[in-house]
Amino acid sequence: MIPPPIAEIAALARGRSFPADKPLLDLAQAVPAWPPADALTRHLADAVREPGTARYTPILGRDDLRDALAESLSDAYGGDVTRERVAITAGCNQAFCLALMALASPGDEAILAAPSYFNYQMWLEMLGIAPVYLPFRPERGGVPDPADARARITPRTRAIVLVTPNNPTGAIYPPETIHAFHGLAREAGVALVLDETYRDFLPEDAPSHGLFARPGWEETLVHLYSFSKVYSLTGYRVGALVAAERLLAEVAKAADCVAICAPAIAQEAALFGLQHLAAFRADKRRLVLERVARFRAVFERNTLAYALISAGAFFAYVRHPFAGMPAAAIARRLVEEENVLCLPGSAFGPDQDDYLRFALANIDGDAMATLGDRLEASQG
Amino acid sequence: MIPPPIAEIAALARGRSFPADKPLLDLAQAVPAWPPADALTRHLADAVREPGTARYTPILGRDDLRDALAESLSDAYGGDVTRERVAITAGCNQAFCLALMALASPGDEAILAAPSYFNYQMWLEMLGIAPVYLPFRPERGGVPDPADARARITPRTRAIVLVTPNNPTGAIYPPETIHAFHGLAREAGVALVLDETYRDFLPEDAPSHGLFARPGWEETLVHLYSFSKVYSLTGYRVGALVAAERLLAEVAKAADCVAICAPAIAQEAALFGLQHLAAFRADKRRLVLERVARFRAVFERNTLAYALISAGAFFAYVRHPFAGMPAAAIARRLVEEENVLCLPGSAFGPDQDDYLRFALANIDGDAMATLGDRLEASQG
Repeated sequence: MIPPPIAEIAALARGRSFPADKPLLDLAQAVPAWPPADALTRHLADAVREPGTARYTPILGRDDLRDALAESLSDAYGGDVTRERVAITAGCNQAFCLALMALASPGDEAILAAPSYFNYQMWLEMLGIAPVYLPFRPERGGVPDPADARARITPRTRAIVLVTPNNPTGAIYPPETIHAFHGLAREAGVALVLDETYRDFLPEDAPSHGLFARPGWEETLVHLYSFSKVYSLTGYRVGALVAAERLLAEVAKAADCVAICAPAIAQEAALFGLQHLAAFRADKRRLVLERVARFRAVFERNTLAYALISAGAFFAYVRHPFAGMPAAAIARRLVEEENVLCLPGSAFGPDQDDYLRFALANIDGDAMATLGDRLEASQG
Repeated sequence: MIPPPIAEIAALARGRSFPADKPLLDLAQAVPAWPPADALTRHLADAVREPGTARYTPILGRDDLRDALAESLSDAYGGDVTRERVAITAGCNQAFCLALMALASPGDEAILAAPSYFNYQMWLEMLGIAPVYLPFRPERGGVPDPADARARITPRTRAIVLVTPNNPTGAIYPPETIHAFHGLAREAGVALVLDETYRDFLPEDAPSHGLFARPGWEETLVHLYSFSKVYSLTGYRVGALVAAERLLAEVAKAADCVAICAPAIAQEAALFGLQHLAAFRADKRRLVLERVARFRAVFERNTLAYALISAGAFFAYVRHPFAGMPAAAIARRLVEEENVLCLPGSAFGPDQDDYLRFALANIDGDAMATLGDRLEASQG
């Protein structure tokens, strides 16, 4: 089992002091660098004074929040989502945990694209569910190939898990790819668990897929989302799971055990966000898209031996030039010698030693400009 | 698997209107009826404005909160607890979930006293850990017998779980009983999981046990606690797990998956409580003890056929007079005919159909006085 990798790598930077001309560039953790909207902060300061904020909500969340998310998803995807199919969770990690408890049992299998978010791998291992990896496809810009999944479905398969925009790669899966995976999952009678935590930072306005518009979508689709990134609420813990009612009945049992409910104040924050923070969301999206563009620009230097494989939303995936060296050794060298904190690809599944994950939300454009020099210096 | 029983029973009262002369007495859910302290509310309204409140904390919680709880436990128990052995969780339910994931695997067994908190049973079943019940001992006031546990330890046993003051019975286990269970667990090489969520409402000032003062306590003891009840923080989600460092390393992996961290604002609230709310805690303890006394007084009428088995902290356990009838039918009749909402003993494990659980925190003394009349009326 992998120890929590963020903690492990961050420990290498902790306690050190960094010179003013070469400050730490923290490109490790996917936390928005900006605080919540002022209007949200003021609203929460008021909400704290309501006695209801100190009390449990229903297990699957407040009805008004479930309604608001259902409406927001229906609007965004031209689809048909109703409250009964929405569960509010204490973060998207928890949504995944609950979904997999409801979908699979020890000895079952779940298909994941390699590389894959380490918390998802850890949870599957803890539940005794075997992760079955789709091979990484750098030549497809990190977008997994449905044909690879077809070849890996067995009678024990219970779910195909996709994350788009992806963590760790930043790859944005095209609608046709998502639809092909959905068709495959439906045909095989397994769930398609689709994590769109970072969907608020997509470059296109068009829906990222058309699944919610398909009648009977809930027979196959389990949709995961987080309010943490879009409204800068990581510390409050609020996310969501959208699925068939019969699945949510199982989800509720597990949620009652591990959470009882998502924090009431976090639910209040999410509802306020959906109702009032469209402009904040648009601003931050613009900011993130700009950071992605500046990150891409770093790799236009032809003196740089690091290669950009994919970038989108909060993340980018980079091939380092030291083939044959473990990614963890390169990540260690980058933080120790170049004060650049990123995560080794090896934290994200098998055969990832050639890669590093960079999280883009955490540093501003000026700091980004020095990244190219530091990476180049690390080439020795 | 039991559906969340609070939701099921509460549904029988929902949507109904109750006459002014016979209002609903909600004795079902263990939620404090009073709001948080004003000083805490003001503090949280300020805390919301700190950007750090919107960010993740370390997985096992803020260092200052871990220190403060360690110090508070060391003081209260004359013991030796340090930060490294304290994990902050998003509620005590989650502490139990994480502890059991770290202690046991599918096919293992955990010993629980019957009746037992339903979320704990549900979680064990979801993990494939067999709950092994100690028989209910009404003749011991609901205090389980260590000899019963000794006879049930097998090579698959991984933990003995005790909750004191108990949910659902309200029974307060004497120190000698807790020590005997600890000795037994140590001898058998299994964990003693001791949930003292309601310890702030004990009638005595003396420590409830001497385990934290024993060298090597962490080899056997896993201590669970909640900040929800004492500071009226149920909606914020914050509790704790105290155990050996090697166990907390495993707990951290599961916590990273299901929670990432307890909500930052909830941790802020817990820390403020430990530092500033001793008087609030003392007031509420007095209030709860008074409610327990008034509840006991109801059963002094010799015309009442309901018998009080045990009462303490937030709960009381009562034998109904309709032997042979399912407890769920009696609970249904009480809410439908007498507007009294309580939970059937059968929600809490095997052989509990003679009993009902009453939660005392939710109604005031005057309402309590009418309970006797209503129970008597239900005798038909």
